Amino acid sequence: MPLSPNSIGLFTGTVLLGSDIPARYRHDRSGHVPSGAPEALVSAANVDDVRHAVRLAADSGWSVVVRGAGSGLAGAAAAGAGALVLDVSGLDQILEIATSDELAVVQPGVSAAVLDTEAHRHGLRYTPDPASTAISTIGGNIATNAGGLRCVKYGVTGDSVLGLTVVLADGELLHTGRRTAKGVAGFDLTSLFVGSEGTLGVIVAATVRLQPVPVDTVTVAAYFADIEQAAAACAAVLTARVRPAMLELLDEASLREAQNLLGVRAEAAGAFVVAQTDGFGARAEADRIAETFGRVTARVRVGTDAEAAHELLAVRRAALPALERHGRVLIEDIAVPRSRIAEAARKITEIAARHDSRIYTFGHAGDGNLHPIIVVPTDDPDAHPRAVAAADEIFATALELGGTITGEHGIGVLKRDWLACELGPRALRVQLAVRRALDPNALFNPGKAV
Amino acid sequence: MPLSPNSIGLFTGTVLLGSDIPARYRHDRSGHVPSGAPEALVSAANVDDVRHAVRLAADSGWSVVVRGAGSGLAGAAAAGAGALVLDVSGLDQILEIATSDELAVVQPGVSAAVLDTEAHRHGLRYTPDPASTAISTIGGNIATNAGGLRCVKYGVTGDSVLGLTVVLADGELLHTGRRTAKGVAGFDLTSLFVGSEGTLGVIVAATVRLQPVPVDTVTVAAYFADIEQAAAACAAVLTARVRPAMLELLDEASLREAQNLLGVRAEAAGAFVVAQTDGFGARAEADRIAETFGRVTARVRVGTDAEAAHELLAVRRAALPALERHGRVLIEDIAVPRSRIAEAARKITEIAARHDSRIYTFGHAGDGNLHPIIVVPTDDPDAHPRAVAAADEIFATALELGGTITGEHGIGVLKRDWLACELGPRALRVQLAVRRALDPNALFNPGKAV
Ligand SMILES: Cc1cc2nc3c(=O)[nH]c(=O)nc-3n(C[C@H](O)[C@H](O)[C@H](O)COP(=O)(O)OP(=O)(O)OC[C@H]3O[C@@H](n4cnc5c(N)ncnc54)[C@H](O)[C@@H]3O)c2cc1C
Ligand SMILES: Cc1cc2nc3c(=O)[nH]c(=O)nc-3n(C[C@H](O)[C@H](O)[C@H](O)COP(=O)(O)OP(=O)(O)OC[C@H]3O[C@@H](n4cnc5c(N)ncnc54)[C@H](O)[C@@H]3O)c2cc1C
Repeated sequence: MPLSPNSIGLFTGTVLLGSDIPARYRHDRSGHVPSGAPEALVSAANVDDVRHAVRLAADSGWSVVVRGAGSGLAGAAAAGAGALVLDVSGLDQILEIATSDELAVVQPGVSAAVLDTEAHRHGLRYTPDPASTAISTIGGNIATNAGGLRCVKYGVTGDSVLGLTVVLADGELLHTGRRTAKGVAGFDLTSLFVGSEGTLGVIVAATVRLQPVPVDTVTVAAYFADIEQAAAACAAVLTARVRPAMLELLDEASLREAQNLLGVRAEAAGAFVVAQTDGFGARAEADRIAETFGRVTARVRVGTDAEAAHELLAVRRAALPALERHGRVLIEDIAVPRSRIAEAARKITEIAARHDSRIYTFGHAGDGNLHPIIVVPTDDPDAHPRAVAAADEIFATALELGGTITGEHGIGVLKRDWLACELGPRALRVQLAVRRALDPNALFNPGKAV
Repeated sequence: MPLSPNSIGLFTGTVLLGSDIPARYRHDRSGHVPSGAPEALVSAANVDDVRHAVRLAADSGWSVVVRGAGSGLAGAAAAGAGALVLDVSGLDQILEIATSDELAVVQPGVSAAVLDTEAHRHGLRYTPDPASTAISTIGGNIATNAGGLRCVKYGVTGDSVLGLTVVLADGELLHTGRRTAKGVAGFDLTSLFVGSEGTLGVIVAATVRLQPVPVDTVTVAAYFADIEQAAAACAAVLTARVRPAMLELLDEASLREAQNLLGVRAEAAGAFVVAQTDGFGARAEADRIAETFGRVTARVRVGTDAEAAHELLAVRRAALPALERHGRVLIEDIAVPRSRIAEAARKITEIAARHDSRIYTFGHAGDGNLHPIIVVPTDDPDAHPRAVAAADEIFATALELGGTITGEHGIGVLKRDWLACELGPRALRVQLAVRRALDPNALFNPGKAV
């Protein structure tokens, strides 16, 4: 359907149609590319553009695929035939930082990294810290309920969201939540939009919690004989009543690759753990961690300044880039009850052997959230189907161990079939009923998420 | 409609009809009594009883009023004509405590106090602590998203809920959430049921987070010249990057009454603040609080053991019982952005004068959550309408200051009209659409909450 000059004239931002739309708008960072190409791309310059775009899509019989930075790993922002891509990354203003109320009001295109930097000027910080913090938008982080390293103490993205402004399927604005720390007036619609992967509406503003910058931060790292020993040491830290702000685990294979990338002398070990503590008790907590680790390994390092922290964390940061050198990577994302971490990691190693695949596992031990990374060498045409079979077994294992098929990356298109396994038919029906209540004509991201 | 022996025979628990139902099932602790009396009372002995009761009500054209301990303050559990009261307080088993996963699975009739005591046996605790912890049920706490003293550090009840089992309007079971710390598979239905005041389904089991018992706890109390000085001192504590586990404020009038009840020498002061810190940094944080308070008042006390804590907290605990001696009390519950606490308290004093009412204000300063208590002397017949008018002005003030009409007690029947003011027509429509999606025939608590 050709757009009338009238409807184009409504927009302040740019509108591109058909083949003028750059190819990158078809996919996110999962690699999934849907069939067909989107019909229209609206790069919104303001909230009215968002409202017009939603109405335009409804009038044109198109669906709306909201897009932040396209860094998603589940194909949730992928857009094919029949879709209007609504790019909100240009709505990138921090509207307010209220220091004494410890909150900020932001547009969805702001990145968490920029918000955090700005908050620091006020002695505050924004705690959610996905590894993609600089290459994703806060709107996308909210729509996927992104996790990160600090969740074990500070919670996931949703735990920092107080309220939202959303453009609904009829183009109208909805305000959810509040500016107060607490409040119970009506159902918690804010949490419903958090993690909804663009299926319920377009987030055009968010009120988010900020927290004081901690007075002190200490980092502790240690090498262990094997994954069982490392997981047990992590459990012992929590039993010792320590609340680490970070508790990360690397298996033997990913540790080796990360050390190679960094060019550091490879310290052979069966597993690596890096923890961070912060706040007034940071040193006492770090001492307790070092002592706990020290009971099973002699190779414990403690860093009390930013430079040492940087060094001790380098291996964790290098893990993914190190693997990306070896081919395409499937970045998986399961969570299990914390007591099952070692079992999960061990089973993943077995799955890798069974499917002749290279799988490296690291992740957020404090939350039981593991990222098995399947490396798919580009020169082996059979590697991809083997990798997919291995991934399926990993999801099955997560469910068997009482866990979930996705700790933080979401369902998107890639895990739709598995969602039905995790939720069961009854819960899926209720999920769909809620979706229909908000988007009766299935305008937003049809075929994605639930 | 007379019940057939068949339907009665289905129940393991007791069923009472019409005039056999004790009068106390008509109301909760708000004092609100609806017109008419309930038709039936089912005291459920197991989950099947709950399912049968829901179906029985649907078949009989009755509504379902779920009841925990009836300690609510908004009339949400009040039951009048046409209602089947479904009392789930008898489902009071702790089903599991998983120490290394730091979680418990409980039935809804367990009290938070009992769960907390049991968790302590495992070195853990259940952090949500409404003042009614021993006289309410955890199901009711979840259904109202109850707050308490520790929210400022540990969050409200909902922040401790990982997953729920709910009986829906068709009598079927729905499982929401998970046992893992994180997870993003599908919409967050758990948060939708939290705070839903019995309008979406019957919570028959909950998986809740436990936390380690802190290694140390320190209490700091101080007397201030006036409410402005006290509120400023609370703000300064937070700016000093302290994360207190409790930060409570009493105004002059409630302080005086509490001291009278306790029979302690009344320390004249314009306001009283009591804070608690916990964890590895407890002492350092308490020192910082004492130092911060010490800049404006010489009357600061620090207590490092349980006995001292008990003594310093006694005044806060005595505030409500002290007021209940003077007549009926309307326990109000607003929240404002933290920076507006002093302004709110000051305006409440003005409202009291304007309406010739006695209003005492105390509450959770760390969350901006204030409880203005309106004492209605029983010997003054005009006092009640004046109190209601004053309450209305308090709600209006909360909204004017960017706050909410309820921080933790909920909407129930008493604040329905005010809910529309807070949410606006658009949000109310969306809320109702969600409610209809889950309960299309308005079986659960019709006319209550949203
Ligand atoms: C190197 C790398 C590291 C990563 N690390 C992490 C990590 O540590 N933790 C983690 O959780 N994820 C991680 N991710 C995944 C990804 O970055 C996150 O999911 C991120 O939140 C997506 O944000 P985005 O702006 O790129 O969203 P997009 O990919 O553009 O969109 C993601 C979903 O959100 C929806 N959406 C986007 N904006 C809005 C809006 N304003 N309103 C409504 N819906 C919207 C889209 O429709 C889509 O469904 C990583 C990705 C990469 C490439
Ligand atoms: C002295 C006193 C102090 C209080 N202090 C606090 C406080 O500090 N913080 C606070 O937040 N509140 C407080 N309250 C209010 C009240 O105790 C809480 O709202 C409590 O959570 C209610 O629990 P209950 O079991 O008594 O629920 P009820 O009063 O029986 O019911 C409350 C609501 O929850 C619903 N409900 C109950 N159980 C279920 C279930 N299993 N499934 C679905 N819906 C259900 C009911 O239908 C109703 O809508 C206080 C009350 C009193 C009397």
